[in-house]
Amino acid sequence: MQISVILQKGVELCPFLKWPLKKGAKSVSVAFFIQKYGGTSVGSTERIKNVARRVARFHAQGHQIVVVVSAMSGETNRLIALAHEVQDTPDPRELDVMISTGEQVSIALLCMALKELNVQAKSYTGSQVRILTDNSHTKARILSIDEDNIRADLDAGSVVVVAGFQGVGGDGSITTLGRGGSDTTGVALAAALNADECQIYTDVDGIYTTDPRVVPEARRLNTITFEEMLEMASLGSKVLQLRSVEFAGKYKVKLRVLSSFKDEGQGTLITFEEDGNMEQAVISGIAFNRDEAKITIIGVPDRPGIAYQILGPVADSNIDVDMIIQNVGHDGLTDFSFTVHRNDFNTTLNILKDKIQPHVDARDVVGGDRIAKVSVVGVGMRSHAGIASKMFRVLAEEGINIQMIATSEIKVSVVVDEKYMELAVRVLHKAFDLEQAR
Amino acid sequence: MQISVILQKGVELCPFLKWPLKKGAKSVSVAFFIQKYGGTSVGSTERIKNVARRVARFHAQGHQIVVVVSAMSGETNRLIALAHEVQDTPDPRELDVMISTGEQVSIALLCMALKELNVQAKSYTGSQVRILTDNSHTKARILSIDEDNIRADLDAGSVVVVAGFQGVGGDGSITTLGRGGSDTTGVALAAALNADECQIYTDVDGIYTTDPRVVPEARRLNTITFEEMLEMASLGSKVLQLRSVEFAGKYKVKLRVLSSFKDEGQGTLITFEEDGNMEQAVISGIAFNRDEAKITIIGVPDRPGIAYQILGPVADSNIDVDMIIQNVGHDGLTDFSFTVHRNDFNTTLNILKDKIQPHVDARDVVGGDRIAKVSVVGVGMRSHAGIASKMFRVLAEEGINIQMIATSEIKVSVVVDEKYMELAVRVLHKAFDLEQAR
Repeated sequence: MQISVILQKGVELCPFLKWPLKKGAKSVSVAFFIQKYGGTSVGSTERIKNVARRVARFHAQGHQIVVVVSAMSGETNRLIALAHEVQDTPDPRELDVMISTGEQVSIALLCMALKELNVQAKSYTGSQVRILTDNSHTKARILSIDEDNIRADLDAGSVVVVAGFQGVGGDGSITTLGRGGSDTTGVALAAALNADECQIYTDVDGIYTTDPRVVPEARRLNTITFEEMLEMASLGSKVLQLRSVEFAGKYKVKLRVLSSFKDEGQGTLITFEEDGNMEQAVISGIAFNRDEAKITIIGVPDRPGIAYQILGPVADSNIDVDMIIQNVGHDGLTDFSFTVHRNDFNTTLNILKDKIQPHVDARDVVGGDRIAKVSVVGVGMRSHAGIASKMFRVLAEEGINIQMIATSEIKVSVVVDEKYMELAVRVLHKAFDLEQAR
Repeated sequence: MQISVILQKGVELCPFLKWPLKKGAKSVSVAFFIQKYGGTSVGSTERIKNVARRVARFHAQGHQIVVVVSAMSGETNRLIALAHEVQDTPDPRELDVMISTGEQVSIALLCMALKELNVQAKSYTGSQVRILTDNSHTKARILSIDEDNIRADLDAGSVVVVAGFQGVGGDGSITTLGRGGSDTTGVALAAALNADECQIYTDVDGIYTTDPRVVPEARRLNTITFEEMLEMASLGSKVLQLRSVEFAGKYKVKLRVLSSFKDEGQGTLITFEEDGNMEQAVISGIAFNRDEAKITIIGVPDRPGIAYQILGPVADSNIDVDMIIQNVGHDGLTDFSFTVHRNDFNTTLNILKDKIQPHVDARDVVGGDRIAKVSVVGVGMRSHAGIASKMFRVLAEEGINIQMIATSEIKVSVVVDEKYMELAVRVLHKAFDLEQAR
């Protein structure tokens, strides 16, 4: 959707907008944006007024805007606590009725703030839009979005403000999409309405090469590919909900992460590799986490079905397994290692010792929860050899022992002793020149 | 709607239920109640649990119950204050989106509390019921109620919990019914669903012959007629919203006022005069208020149109006039008196002195705001002469001067000096034997 309008004189264009300006004309191509503001961005009436001022500026530039808002920060937790005062395990349908009120308050307040700035605005709850979901209360999936009402309001020059995180089931019950669901609402609306861009406003100003608290030289990325974003989960999850990234990838929605507290900055645009025409570094970032624990079952028979025999009982206990490594066996035996969330370490160790070790006649079960996973991520890896070996060399030079290795097409992950994690991230960030602007 | 069910053994019948018990049987006729709980009754999660226990008890007796709840006390005011932080005059449509969340939280919490007691329950917002209203945001009027969903849930054995105070406009926008609108929701549901009784649970246990803070001997009335209830506005408005009483009168809904904090007591049933078969005292109660001020314009020409000439400019200033008294004139002149709300006293006095006195060539304008109105109310007055003269005698015996008198078919009101108000109420209460149970 590209509409030509005459801009008012003196209207300042948003600096990061790259919509083509017609030469020598007062007219400019304008765009259709979904803007999503999280709980911190609407955490007080003052902040809501700030959001309104930003939206009003975009609106004055002639852009069409649908704003998606979360509940004011703290509100959802307050409501959940209230529910738990009444019922030990709150009924999911009624919990959705209750927690959906948080976003309902936000949409009303934002519309009032916009009207106070003389901007035409109209609010919609999930039911009112009609964001149809399945009936899985507290973790519903969006099935379809009715675009008619929103489209009519946009065409009438209104800003449309939609409650994030919520929808309506086929039976008319209010549903919610689970934590971080407002991102998903934003992306789904962008897909359904065919918006030019879905802008996610948060308390950080983009995606960084790594966590700036660990590496002060960490640099904001202008772009990152969807594949990289997904791999950088442990970084990205603090900024973007993974499910919304997957959703955006599936429906080819352009996502941009921006700060709601800074007026400048283009944030980070999450791109599709096939867009191609952008400069691309080999490595985009270094992800890390210390939430995992490793477990090795030593000397198991190297025969078909052994992996299932070991991991089946773990999965049955609803424990998620991350890395899985099995090396080439010898003498008919092999060692089998995997990582789980640190909180599941003891449970998993007990399952293996009690149920699996005697059963498969393994020699021993060992493990440790003082580990960290460090990953080098970049789509450039596909066309550049030697990334893994460079990573191993850099770590070896610092005397950091690698305990486990796992790779994907665009990622190399290693498990190291927890105490070396920061050091590993810093030396890798430097070795791959990530502090240099691409 | 009267259904016969087998009661569980040991189930204690609510003491005030008068539905006919079949002799010698374990079976009892059960009823269909609307129960409305106000903000104080659901003011905390503990109180919500109490409401749930009461509803569960009724449900266990086999009754069908639709519960209407208000927002937790203080919540609506909190939301309105938040709105005013954002917009000086909050947009009415968006204000309704916002304040309707208060009841939405209450319905969810009450359903959770019921489920915790293993009572099947389902919540409905105004939109979900479909309580269709006009589009007058913040003061909408109910047009129709869709009963299908509620009826199906009741038939399936569920308690239905409906958000009071709210509905949905023809365009799908959320509307609210104005302060006290939850009472109206309760009465409207009772009318639409043809309930046997609409029970209004409040923080008082019924309607009293007069305010017990003034007359400790004041007695709870078992019954009061709609006409009396309407006349006792100044008493009743503290308990029941007048609009809901009018509504109940119009649709012949049986209303009962009960305490949500006491488990016993039959409250006060508001009856229709034509029901007839109940014992009826001549006088039901003594109402009073000190919110008024009196104004007299002295020596105005006794000619047609003079009342309009005086009161027209007052009405044009949006000032409500209560009592109006004009006595027989002499010498072509008369005195004209009326009362207004005490807050409007000075404005009204100025209007009369500046605009009316010179215009109609009146001798003087005098007034006073240290007055009180005391009213004796009772439908029995219609068939009993002498109520007014008894009232005047009793006041005379105490040396209380009557400044103004106004009467209706079932009420005699007098204006007295404010300092005699309590005394007047006490002696009248005694003189009409109101402390004696009828």
